[in-house]
Amino acid sequence: MNNFARSEELRFLLFDLLEVETLADRPRYDGQDRGIWDAALTTAEQMAVQHFAPHNREADLNEPRLVDGAVQTVSGVKPALGAFADAGFLRAHHDDALGGLQLPWAVVQGCFAFFQAANIATVAYPFLTIAAGNLLARFASDDQKSRFLPPMLSGRFFGTMCLSEPQAGSSLTDITTSARPTADGRYAISGVKQWISGGEHELSDNIIHLVLARIEGAPPGVKGLSLFIVPRFRLDTGGEPAAANDVHLVSLLHKMGYRGTTSTILRFGENDACEGELIGEANRGLTYMFQMMNEARIGVGLGAAMLAHAGYVHSLDYARNRPQGRHPGGKDPAAPPVAIIEHADVKRMLLAQRAYAEGGMALCLHAAKLMDDERTAPPKQAANASLLLDVLTPICKAWPSEWGPRANDLAIQIMGGYGYTRDYPVEQYYRDNRLNPIHEGTNGIQALDLLGRKLAMSDGRGLDLLAEEIRSTGATASDDEVLRPHADALATHLDAVVHTSALLLARMQAGDVNLALANASLHLDAMGQVVIAWQWLRQAIVAQRMLDAGNGDPDYLQGKVQVCHYFCRYELPRVNQLTELLNQIDTTCADTPASWF
Amino acid sequence: MNNFARSEELRFLLFDLLEVETLADRPRYDGQDRGIWDAALTTAEQMAVQHFAPHNREADLNEPRLVDGAVQTVSGVKPALGAFADAGFLRAHHDDALGGLQLPWAVVQGCFAFFQAANIATVAYPFLTIAAGNLLARFASDDQKSRFLPPMLSGRFFGTMCLSEPQAGSSLTDITTSARPTADGRYAISGVKQWISGGEHELSDNIIHLVLARIEGAPPGVKGLSLFIVPRFRLDTGGEPAAANDVHLVSLLHKMGYRGTTSTILRFGENDACEGELIGEANRGLTYMFQMMNEARIGVGLGAAMLAHAGYVHSLDYARNRPQGRHPGGKDPAAPPVAIIEHADVKRMLLAQRAYAEGGMALCLHAAKLMDDERTAPPKQAANASLLLDVLTPICKAWPSEWGPRANDLAIQIMGGYGYTRDYPVEQYYRDNRLNPIHEGTNGIQALDLLGRKLAMSDGRGLDLLAEEIRSTGATASDDEVLRPHADALATHLDAVVHTSALLLARMQAGDVNLALANASLHLDAMGQVVIAWQWLRQAIVAQRMLDAGNGDPDYLQGKVQVCHYFCRYELPRVNQLTELLNQIDTTCADTPASWF
Repeated sequence: MNNFARSEELRFLLFDLLEVETLADRPRYDGQDRGIWDAALTTAEQMAVQHFAPHNREADLNEPRLVDGAVQTVSGVKPALGAFADAGFLRAHHDDALGGLQLPWAVVQGCFAFFQAANIATVAYPFLTIAAGNLLARFASDDQKSRFLPPMLSGRFFGTMCLSEPQAGSSLTDITTSARPTADGRYAISGVKQWISGGEHELSDNIIHLVLARIEGAPPGVKGLSLFIVPRFRLDTGGEPAAANDVHLVSLLHKMGYRGTTSTILRFGENDACEGELIGEANRGLTYMFQMMNEARIGVGLGAAMLAHAGYVHSLDYARNRPQGRHPGGKDPAAPPVAIIEHADVKRMLLAQRAYAEGGMALCLHAAKLMDDERTAPPKQAANASLLLDVLTPICKAWPSEWGPRANDLAIQIMGGYGYTRDYPVEQYYRDNRLNPIHEGTNGIQALDLLGRKLAMSDGRGLDLLAEEIRSTGATASDDEVLRPHADALATHLDAVVHTSALLLARMQAGDVNLALANASLHLDAMGQVVIAWQWLRQAIVAQRMLDAGNGDPDYLQGKVQVCHYFCRYELPRVNQLTELLNQIDTTCADTPASWF
Repeated sequence: MNNFARSEELRFLLFDLLEVETLADRPRYDGQDRGIWDAALTTAEQMAVQHFAPHNREADLNEPRLVDGAVQTVSGVKPALGAFADAGFLRAHHDDALGGLQLPWAVVQGCFAFFQAANIATVAYPFLTIAAGNLLARFASDDQKSRFLPPMLSGRFFGTMCLSEPQAGSSLTDITTSARPTADGRYAISGVKQWISGGEHELSDNIIHLVLARIEGAPPGVKGLSLFIVPRFRLDTGGEPAAANDVHLVSLLHKMGYRGTTSTILRFGENDACEGELIGEANRGLTYMFQMMNEARIGVGLGAAMLAHAGYVHSLDYARNRPQGRHPGGKDPAAPPVAIIEHADVKRMLLAQRAYAEGGMALCLHAAKLMDDERTAPPKQAANASLLLDVLTPICKAWPSEWGPRANDLAIQIMGGYGYTRDYPVEQYYRDNRLNPIHEGTNGIQALDLLGRKLAMSDGRGLDLLAEEIRSTGATASDDEVLRPHADALATHLDAVVHTSALLLARMQAGDVNLALANASLHLDAMGQVVIAWQWLRQAIVAQRMLDAGNGDPDYLQGKVQVCHYFCRYELPRVNQLTELLNQIDTTCADTPASWF
C-alpha cells in the first residue's frame, strides 16, 4: 500500500489487459514468469515508498542550486538513486551479458511507473540514463560500449540528451553546435545547449552527454547532424573519470514544477578543450537520437499518466473522507452531511481522472509491450509492432501530457481550497505535469509528426494496422450487450478519423502542405480520443470477462467498466466536432495575419 | 503602454461594445462624460504600471509570513494600496455624499481590470474592501455606516468576508460560528473561519470582518445565519481603532498561487471577548452576504479573464519576437526561420486565448453595466437587468475561471520551456488563475446555482430574457453576410440549451432533483459557451460596423471579427455534444457507487 499509485492497477494493466505472461514463451525471457515480474513490481513499489516519495515535496521546495561551483540537490536524492541502481533497475531489461535480467520492457516500465508517481523529478535522472544507455547499446561501437555502458548500468555515470540550443528548440535544423575532427580521431565540440535535464549535478561520478552537433562542412539542416558522446569528465585509461572535459554550467533554469530535476544551460568547449566521440556514422545523429526520443516520448506519456493517477489516488482519499453537503434533493439541515464522493459532480471528476490517467497508462504500457514485440516476437508480429509504434508514439506522448494535467486540475477541484494549498500534493502534480506537453517535442511537434510524417510512412500501413486492431477490439466488444453501443460508437468515430486522415494526406500530396497541417493539433486530438476509447474498450472487455468468470475484485472491475461507459459517453463524442472541422480544411487560424493580433 | 493589459481592449469593450457613454444621460452620472471616464482608465493603468506590477513576482516569491506575531508582506504592497486609496478608487462609484465620484460601476470595473492584470494578489485587498463597503452601504444602519464606511472608503480600514469554516466550505448550512447577545445590544462571536483572504496583515489600521454566524437559538441551516461586523480592533468613541477584539490568527495558508494575498484561519472569541454588531435583521445574513458574493463572483470572473488577457499579451510578444522553424511546406534549412506567430498552430493558440480572455472580459463588463442599469435605468430596464444578472452571475464566475486558466496554459505552451520557467510571468498567471474556479463558490456550486435556483426564479423570466437578447443579437448579425452563419449557429445552439434547460427543470419539478442536477456542470458549460458566443457576435457586429465606417484601427477590428470566427467555428459546436448528453439525463456519474472507485 502506498498513497501515490495503486498496485492492483498496474497489475491489471500488465497481466490482465496486456497479458505479458505470454511473453514468457519467447527465448529472451526464458525462465521468467509472472512470479518474477510480480516480485519486480513489488520491489519497485517498496523502493518508491521508501526512497522516492519521502523527498518529493522537499525537492520541490528546495530546487537544485549552485553552491561554491557545485550543484546541490536535497539529501534524499542521491541515496534514492543509489538504491534504484543497486536494485538493478538501470539494467533490468538489458542482456544477460551486460549484467541485465532481460526483463520485458513492459514490466520494467510498469516498475518505473511506481517511481514516476512517487517522484517524477528524481526519477528523471535514471529515466535519461536508461534511455542514453539504450541508445549506446544499439548504436555505439563495442569499444565505446565497453567503456561507457557498464558504469551507466550500475549507476556510477548518468546520461543526458543534448539537443536544444538557445536559438534552436523545436527546430533542430538550426542546431549550430560544432564538432571539429582532432588528430586522435575524436572531435572538439563547441556550442551551447539549453534545457538539459540532469546536465550538471554531483549525484554521479560522471555525466555522459549525448550531444547533437554539426561536423564542420556537414550539410545544412538535420541531415548534417551527428551524435557525440561527451563526458563531463574524460575517462582515464582505466575507464575512471579523470580530467574535466571543458563542459561548463552557464546557469540553472528555474521551473514552475519538476523542480527536483536540474535543468541547465551548458557550454561545451569554452576553452576549446571539449572532447567528443562520434557515435556510428557522421550525419546520422538525428536517426540515432530518434531511438532515444521515441523511447523518451512514451516514457513522458507514462509519467504524465502516472502523475494523473497519483492525483486521482489523493483526491479519491479526500473524497471518501471529507463530509460536506447533502444531496440536492435532501434539504434537511439536521441530517448529517455526506462524504463528497456521494455527490454526482465529484463522481464525474473522479471518473474523468481515471479516464485520463488509466487510459494513458494503458496506452503507454501497450506501447512498451509493442517494443518488446518489436524485439522478440516472430518477424511478422515484430514488423507490425514497429508499424503500430510509429503511429502510436506521438499519441503516447501527447495525449497523456494533454489530459494528465486536466486530471490534476480535477484533483485540485475536488479538494477545493485544500487542493490549492501546498499542504497536499495535488498542486505539485499539477505544476510538475505541466512540463510534459513541452519537453521531448512539444505537443504541436507531435501533431506534425503524426500527420506530416507517421501517417504517410510505409504507405500508410501503420494507420491501416491500427484501424484493424481497433476494429478487432470493437468486434469482440460487440458480443457484449453492455459494451456494444460503445463498440458501435468507436467504429463510427474510427471511420471518421480514418476518413479525415486520408483527406488531409491527399491534400498534402496535392501540395497544400501548410493548409493540410494547419489544424494538425486537432487531428492529433481526434486520433487520441479514438485510441484512448479503444484502450478503454479493451479494458472493459477484460474486466467484464473477469467479472463473468468470478475472477478478481468485483468492485474494481465494475469500476473499470464504468470508466469505459464514462469515456465513451462523455468524452468520445467530441471526435464528431473535431473531424467535422478538419474535413472543412478550415483556414481560420492559418489565415490570420500577424498584424491582427 | 504596459505589458499586461491592452488599453485599447478595455476601451473597445466599454465605449464601443457596451456604449457606456449612454449612461451619461442618467441623473446619477450628471456632468460625467467619456473624457472623465477615459481619464479614470488612464489613471488606473498608470497606477497599475507604477505601483502594482513591479512587486507582482516579488510577492509571489515572498508570501506573507508571521514575524514576531505580525503578518509581514513585501514592501511594495502597502504603498501600492495607499496610492490606490489616495487616487479615490475605493470610493469612485460611491455617492457624492460619501465622498465618491458616482462613476458607473462598469467604468470602475474597467479601471479595476488593469490592477487585476498587473497584480491579482495585491488587488484582492481593495477588492474585498470595496465589496464589504458596498454591503455596508446597502444593508448596515446609518450609525454603522457612519463609523465604518468612511475609513473603509479612504483605505484606512480594509474588509473581509468570513463565510467558510474548516468543516463548512461549500456547505454554508453547516456553519457553526455562534453569536450570543450581550447586554449592550452587541453579540459575542465565537468560532473558527477558514480561507479568509486578507484576514490578517499590517496593511491597514483595522480589518473589518463581515462574519456569518448563528445567533443562539436560531433555526438550523442557512435560514439561521446572521451577518456581523467584527472589527479586528474595536473602535473607541472617536471611531479610532483601539483595543484588540479577540480575533486571532490560527495560521496562514500556503497556496500554489495568489500568494501575495494573505489566506488565513481565524479564531473569533478565543477569550470570549469578540464583539460583533448585527447587520440588518437576524437570520437574514445570507441574503445580505449574497449581495457581496454576487458582486465578488463577477469580480472573480473578470480577474480570471484579466489573467488570461495578461498571458495573451506576454505570449503574443514572445510569438512576435521568437524566430523558430519554417512553414511545413518550406524545407530549405538555409532559409531564415520565421517568427513563431507565423505558424498556424501558434495562431490557433493566440486566437483561443483571445476567445477566452476577451470573451470573459466582455461578459463580466456587460454584467457590471447591468449592475449600473439595475441601479439607474428606468424601472422596466432596471428590472430586466436584475433578471439577466440572476442568470448571468454564475456564468460570469464560472466561465472565465474555467477557461482563463486554459488560456494561461496556451500562453505557456506558445512560450515552450521559457513559459515554464519563472523568468517569465505566464507560469505565475497559470498558478494564480487556478484559484478562481475554487473561491467565491466552486464552479460546481455555480452550476447548481444556475440550474437549481436561477433558471426557475421569477418563473424562468431570466432565461427567457437572456434568450431574447441573444436572438436580438443574432438578428442583427444576420444582416451581415460574413456573420450570418454564426448567427444561425448561435440560434441553433441557443434553442438547444433552452430546450435542455426546460427538460431538466421539468424533471426537477417532477421530483427527480438529484438526477436532473447530476450533470449540472455540463449544463453550465453549455450555457456558458452560448453566452460567450453571443458576446463574440456582439463584438464582431460592432467591429464590423466600425470597419465599414472607417473608424478605429482596422487591424485591431479585423482581429476582433476573426476571433469571433474562431470561437464560432472551433468552440461553439461543442454545445451539440453537451446538450445531447444532458437530454439523455445520463446517470453514469450519479450511478457509480463509491465502492467502485
